[in-house]
Amino acid sequence: MKQFTLNQTVKLIEQNKITLLKNEINRCHSGDISQIINNLSEEYQILVFKLLNLENAADVLHELYDEVRENIIENTPQKNLFNIVDEMDSDEATDLVSELEEDLADEILSNIDKEDSAEIVKLLKYDEESAGGLMQTEIIAVQQNMKRDEVIEYIRKNVDDAENIHYVFVVDDDNKLLGLFEVTKLLLAEKNKQAIDLMEDEMISVNVDVDQEETAHLFRKYDLFILPVIDAKNHLLGRITVDDIIDVIDEEASEDAYKMVGLENEDRVFTTPLNSVKKRLPWLSLNLFTALLVSSVVGVFQQTIENLSILAVLMPIVAGLGGNSGTQTLTVITRGIALGELTIHNTSKAILKEITVGTINGIIVGSAAMLMAYLLKGDIMLGVVLGVAMICNMFIAGLVGSIIPVVMKLLKIDPALASSVIITMLTDIGGFASFLGLATLLL
Amino acid sequence: MKQFTLNQTVKLIEQNKITLLKNEINRCHSGDISQIINNLSEEYQILVFKLLNLENAADVLHELYDEVRENIIENTPQKNLFNIVDEMDSDEATDLVSELEEDLADEILSNIDKEDSAEIVKLLKYDEESAGGLMQTEIIAVQQNMKRDEVIEYIRKNVDDAENIHYVFVVDDDNKLLGLFEVTKLLLAEKNKQAIDLMEDEMISVNVDVDQEETAHLFRKYDLFILPVIDAKNHLLGRITVDDIIDVIDEEASEDAYKMVGLENEDRVFTTPLNSVKKRLPWLSLNLFTALLVSSVVGVFQQTIENLSILAVLMPIVAGLGGNSGTQTLTVITRGIALGELTIHNTSKAILKEITVGTINGIIVGSAAMLMAYLLKGDIMLGVVLGVAMICNMFIAGLVGSIIPVVMKLLKIDPALASSVIITMLTDIGGFASFLGLATLLL
Repeated sequence: MKQFTLNQTVKLIEQNKITLLKNEINRCHSGDISQIINNLSEEYQILVFKLLNLENAADVLHELYDEVRENIIENTPQKNLFNIVDEMDSDEATDLVSELEEDLADEILSNIDKEDSAEIVKLLKYDEESAGGLMQTEIIAVQQNMKRDEVIEYIRKNVDDAENIHYVFVVDDDNKLLGLFEVTKLLLAEKNKQAIDLMEDEMISVNVDVDQEETAHLFRKYDLFILPVIDAKNHLLGRITVDDIIDVIDEEASEDAYKMVGLENEDRVFTTPLNSVKKRLPWLSLNLFTALLVSSVVGVFQQTIENLSILAVLMPIVAGLGGNSGTQTLTVITRGIALGELTIHNTSKAILKEITVGTINGIIVGSAAMLMAYLLKGDIMLGVVLGVAMICNMFIAGLVGSIIPVVMKLLKIDPALASSVIITMLTDIGGFASFLGLATLLL
Repeated sequence: MKQFTLNQTVKLIEQNKITLLKNEINRCHSGDISQIINNLSEEYQILVFKLLNLENAADVLHELYDEVRENIIENTPQKNLFNIVDEMDSDEATDLVSELEEDLADEILSNIDKEDSAEIVKLLKYDEESAGGLMQTEIIAVQQNMKRDEVIEYIRKNVDDAENIHYVFVVDDDNKLLGLFEVTKLLLAEKNKQAIDLMEDEMISVNVDVDQEETAHLFRKYDLFILPVIDAKNHLLGRITVDDIIDVIDEEASEDAYKMVGLENEDRVFTTPLNSVKKRLPWLSLNLFTALLVSSVVGVFQQTIENLSILAVLMPIVAGLGGNSGTQTLTVITRGIALGELTIHNTSKAILKEITVGTINGIIVGSAAMLMAYLLKGDIMLGVVLGVAMICNMFIAGLVGSIIPVVMKLLKIDPALASSVIITMLTDIGGFASFLGLATLLL
């Protein structure tokens, strides 16, 4: 395979060696071409994309960053787009069409191959984040009583290139899925074997409406490469390949990391500044509101602080450690939920553990802080107030950091939304209230 | 495939219907059996594992949670362990042996099949987190000039069950990798074709020493199912399958989420409380230190606070919004690095963008806070100080949240280690210093 770099591409463009560039770039893997185009200027993106042959254009287009793809689609003649979509696999073509403005989408659907267009229209009905949204309809499915050589003949007739077949699905007269087997089985099977004889004992399938995250769990749990998709009556509709599941897993991991800090999924490294501002503002407004709440709790103790300003100096310690301890617990619990480790059978054990850990760590860190405050300020009661407040707050951190995501999961709200902003609000309030409250009582 | 639940398992054990349980459980998929055993009590874990046939035992053992596996290994007779390890794929057997105490590991290596043992010893030499650590040596590799039927015959002789073959590798006389092709190609090829004629144009391989994260990038970029592993001289050593890459991606996503909040990877939902305490303490100690630093910055302005205690009430707002804004930027940048979106070509653009977004958001949120402080407290200068401090701090948040992970990446330190504790320390200091400093000057 040809290895070709971004710098070489730019150099050839600048030297106006377009024919050479066309030859070189089309010998690269689509994964490499996408990476090169993603990093070019907008003008060069269009130029290089135009040089691609149909197969590469189809493979590259769906792999580009959203912004880059939009730029290229805007600047590609519609006739070329029709050919490119015709060349794409059904799942990728569907993703592409679903992203387009309605006019352009309609234009494409009425100008491509009728059969392809019908497939896309069917696939567009499924939720993008469901098994149906991930599935492709290009599959090899054979009748249960087909003999070995008939199956081989069927494959020969029904695939252009023998790429990414891997499994043959077996169906009955009514297109209901009976099972599947690896293509390799055909090589080793005796001549008189029927499709049904070759099927594996185990067969995992997924209903077309199942959420993509749950679909990814099936791939994890059963170490799958390919998963057949069925409807409620067990009719075979299509298949999902593992490469699309890797995208789902990446997407879900980003989404969880993002929700944790109140970011929207579309807010990526290269989203325009204005879009990022818009996307982050609602959350920062919520944050301003929680900060005002926290501030009003401190306000209750303003008189105490006026009498003893050292409290204002020490109070960030209580809030800071509580916040971080709470975010740790939150992360452990939400990752446990994301990976399917936390089930109904073991949740209370997990919550109890987090509270225990928070409290023990509170006792240790609180004692250290107590000692430091005493050594630095010479006031033993001040140290005691600081230490006890830290213990209380790290207990609170373990409690809210574990219970809130679990309750959200039970209420079918995404637990990652129990973002650090909520947890730190609670630990800030817990920290300031316990520290300043104790100080008011004892000092 | 048999579907069988945790509750049914427990019920059969309690009714002492062990033979029935044995029949039922062995008809389940290993993925389901693992999940059931993971959620049983320690005693029942051992009981159910004993009921598994050899194939299931081998498949299940490496899929269990670490703590559960340790419990089962301790309570399984060594002779049974030898048989189980003999049954495992080379990569899984190697993972298992590497986790064991040295004595037991040696015992196993000297009691299993000599050939298997030699493979494991070879594989143990590779870094667990490298391509070598992920690879299995069970592969189908044929000479370039073998004819179609010879290749088929070779496969027939060299596989027990035709599971998970998918690709045939082609090598020269010196075992150097020339290319690969899908098994399906053999079905459609003419009789006189040689292995070398069937090879795909494109061939991606990975060097045995490449880090697992980079290996996962290859699967992402090229949509791979299987990746051949070679040494520096292009000799074929083994292959990596995509199911192991999904584990890597999950692991790396957890690791990133964890490092962000100072957690160690082994600190999971069901790590014992004492272990979790131990693992989290070093980081909380660091956090105590950063909190003291922050506190000492506030201490510089203790006199100002004594004169104007409202400052202590408002200061958490500046720090809170800066901290969260900084963590947002940090998350966008570290995810961008993790997914390979951020390259040397576009980093400065990304940093500039984050600073812009931080500052614009600072101006908007700061103005809102300014207005609120004025309306609530009736002091226009207090509002101005609060607003300007928030703008400064959210500028700082964009700056440190983007530059620190990028610099760490350049220094080849994992950018996820630029955890929220460092970023929030900097935004806390920035927030308190700008707010209290401005107040000292202006109020």
